[in-house]
Amino acid sequence: MTALQFEIRSRSARTSARLGRVSTPHGAFDTPAFMPVGTKGTVKGILPPQVRASGAQILLNNTYHLLLRPGPLQVAALGGVHAFMGWDGPILTDSGGYQAYSLADINAVDDDGVTFRSIVDGSSIRMTPERSIEVQQALGADIIMAFDDCPPSIDPDEVRPNQARLKHAVVRDTPRRKQYDHAQRLQLANERTVRWLERCKAAHTRSDQALFGIVQGGTDRDARRWSAERICQVDLPGYAIGGVAVGEPHAQIVEVVRQTAPLLPEGKPRYLMGVGYERDIVEAVRAGVDMFDCVLPTRNGRNAYAFTQTGPLRLRNAAHTVDPRPIEEGCDCPACCPAAHGWLTPGEAAMSRGYIRHLFMAEEMLGPILVTLHNLHHYQRLMGEIRETILTDDWDGLARRWPVLGGLGEPRAEGETGGDGS
Amino acid sequence: MTALQFEIRSRSARTSARLGRVSTPHGAFDTPAFMPVGTKGTVKGILPPQVRASGAQILLNNTYHLLLRPGPLQVAALGGVHAFMGWDGPILTDSGGYQAYSLADINAVDDDGVTFRSIVDGSSIRMTPERSIEVQQALGADIIMAFDDCPPSIDPDEVRPNQARLKHAVVRDTPRRKQYDHAQRLQLANERTVRWLERCKAAHTRSDQALFGIVQGGTDRDARRWSAERICQVDLPGYAIGGVAVGEPHAQIVEVVRQTAPLLPEGKPRYLMGVGYERDIVEAVRAGVDMFDCVLPTRNGRNAYAFTQTGPLRLRNAAHTVDPRPIEEGCDCPACCPAAHGWLTPGEAAMSRGYIRHLFMAEEMLGPILVTLHNLHHYQRLMGEIRETILTDDWDGLARRWPVLGGLGEPRAEGETGGDGS
Repeated sequence: MTALQFEIRSRSARTSARLGRVSTPHGAFDTPAFMPVGTKGTVKGILPPQVRASGAQILLNNTYHLLLRPGPLQVAALGGVHAFMGWDGPILTDSGGYQAYSLADINAVDDDGVTFRSIVDGSSIRMTPERSIEVQQALGADIIMAFDDCPPSIDPDEVRPNQARLKHAVVRDTPRRKQYDHAQRLQLANERTVRWLERCKAAHTRSDQALFGIVQGGTDRDARRWSAERICQVDLPGYAIGGVAVGEPHAQIVEVVRQTAPLLPEGKPRYLMGVGYERDIVEAVRAGVDMFDCVLPTRNGRNAYAFTQTGPLRLRNAAHTVDPRPIEEGCDCPACCPAAHGWLTPGEAAMSRGYIRHLFMAEEMLGPILVTLHNLHHYQRLMGEIRETILTDDWDGLARRWPVLGGLGEPRAEGETGGDGS
Repeated sequence: MTALQFEIRSRSARTSARLGRVSTPHGAFDTPAFMPVGTKGTVKGILPPQVRASGAQILLNNTYHLLLRPGPLQVAALGGVHAFMGWDGPILTDSGGYQAYSLADINAVDDDGVTFRSIVDGSSIRMTPERSIEVQQALGADIIMAFDDCPPSIDPDEVRPNQARLKHAVVRDTPRRKQYDHAQRLQLANERTVRWLERCKAAHTRSDQALFGIVQGGTDRDARRWSAERICQVDLPGYAIGGVAVGEPHAQIVEVVRQTAPLLPEGKPRYLMGVGYERDIVEAVRAGVDMFDCVLPTRNGRNAYAFTQTGPLRLRNAAHTVDPRPIEEGCDCPACCPAAHGWLTPGEAAMSRGYIRHLFMAEEMLGPILVTLHNLHHYQRLMGEIRETILTDDWDGLARRWPVLGGLGEPRAEGETGGDGS
């Protein structure tokens, strides 16, 4: 596997956390790593050097979106995702599966693949494991993901109205809604995901890309164990935990991760897809996870939601109208500490909460830009402190400095304690 | 006038152009200067250090917009416009007059001031010379503008449908539309503008701000001359030419500027408001104008319209789909030359036209951001070359390097040749 090397440099003595480094053809990144999401080939509103200045070392692009527009051939003609978006560091692409299931109004799943309607022009798109790999090879990321069957992790009958991300609950291979059997659907997805992984591996020919497999299984412990065993029988440079944080409460996320992480090969990077809030990430790191991605810092940032160590600030709130304080004292982002970015004269004031609120009220682009920048720095500062904490094992200190974590629970994953017998 | 010093450092021998430097309490700027427009306290989508990196040394904020939202007291509470938006260089605010006339659906003008409806919340706003100065003093810019009566420069009866900026043609102090007499309206505006300037000067108490008067008169030579004489009888640190480039063709803009510029005091900065395209600026410089502002680089940039030395590129055009070239070879902006901004490794490719087109098609913020950055650099590069050309007097060389100028006409303003006798 020349496309990817993973070196574990240190291990937490009190938890299952690992400090490591992943090397790719476009450079290395430190783990545990948080990958900002650059859906359509751009972290929305943020220039590549600004992303890098936040501390991010690897980005994620969404295959689904780039497939629909501008198209893989167009991206390839412009030099692949790195040259396309002007980011010369590592890039990961997902398989397009999750979005095909969750964003398309109409989708049909069968044993060969998924058919869905383009949200761009309404055309019918067919996605199979082979097609996903073909597209990801044209895009040219350093790490590519297997195309998996993505059923809802929670029984659609139990979906609450606010769980918008679960709208892909109803898939067309459950011919009559009333006969939907959630356990049966999960089992089918698990089996398909294994078969599709083998097809992905067979289709994958670019030696400069690392293909990761994805463990599914929803919140069912047996399904997760079965999936992990079968997926990891396919020899790959890394493995992901999918189908998590699609609506479940924190405790359930932690439970699934604690069970699943130790089932993945110890010497290879473990990637928890789409997670998440700060405490989800910290607990997953303590369970042995190395890589994360999530739209929260960027999507919430565009909506005036600023992450801070003590919890979120909602900057449209009228209380901020003439508040001269920065979003967060001590933050090193361009909004909170412009002088650290060669901006303004040393000692000059930061962007105030009052100003940023004004930008949102006036619908100025700079509002989303500034809060996104802040949030990207917030997440990378957290990852930096997590990596330091793996060396010191002072998890209580981390929890004290980051009240947003709400304290931390049991420090160790199941596999390491043997409590689960798995 | 301690708030502003103007030093003329060199003069063109072949034209009326001057190379100078204006000093303000927030630093100096070189003239001829182009001021990017930061309407609501932000150059849309661009961070202050990015504005500075383009070469801009002074910005403009719109009093009208900041008056409506967040309000002058709020801006003052947050430290004034400089601290508010994080720009520690010179700032100029306009008086709010132009927008009160042109943006409000309902406005009524009388000898005391203007009443208009807020475009934010529909409330009724009264603006007088005293109120404009009060607001501009609260905002705290280095240069503030007199509140003037802004009639249409072209007879409303002759307005063409595409001249949207002339929609303020119909003002309510022409009681019956059919009896509108354009020359009479201009004369009334001219007289009011002089009376209002005196009231502005009387109301202006902040010694750290420089108040500029505005010469009106539309396209009527006698009205312009009368206005210039009367306005310049009020002793002020600088004077502006208003009511230009509100729909007239290039030749008429040049004619008005060539007539008016030499009527303004020789030793004080001359500011041509709201102008304009590259060739308008160059001709106005050659007529002796020192300061410019215009929304073209920013507004057009947000609409995928990129300025280049050879003319505009419209980046939504399908011809750019897989075009790997930057917007403009040799440009030093972050999109065309990322390496010059510490971005990417040296020699690495610029943002391609194909990528930027994709950003616009996908409605990604980064598209407007990149083209705005490019356009800001374009305008400042032009100003830099203009300042050099004043030293060398090689205007033909400038015209050769900038084909977009379409050649240059007679080099000298009227006053200097004596052809007008004025």
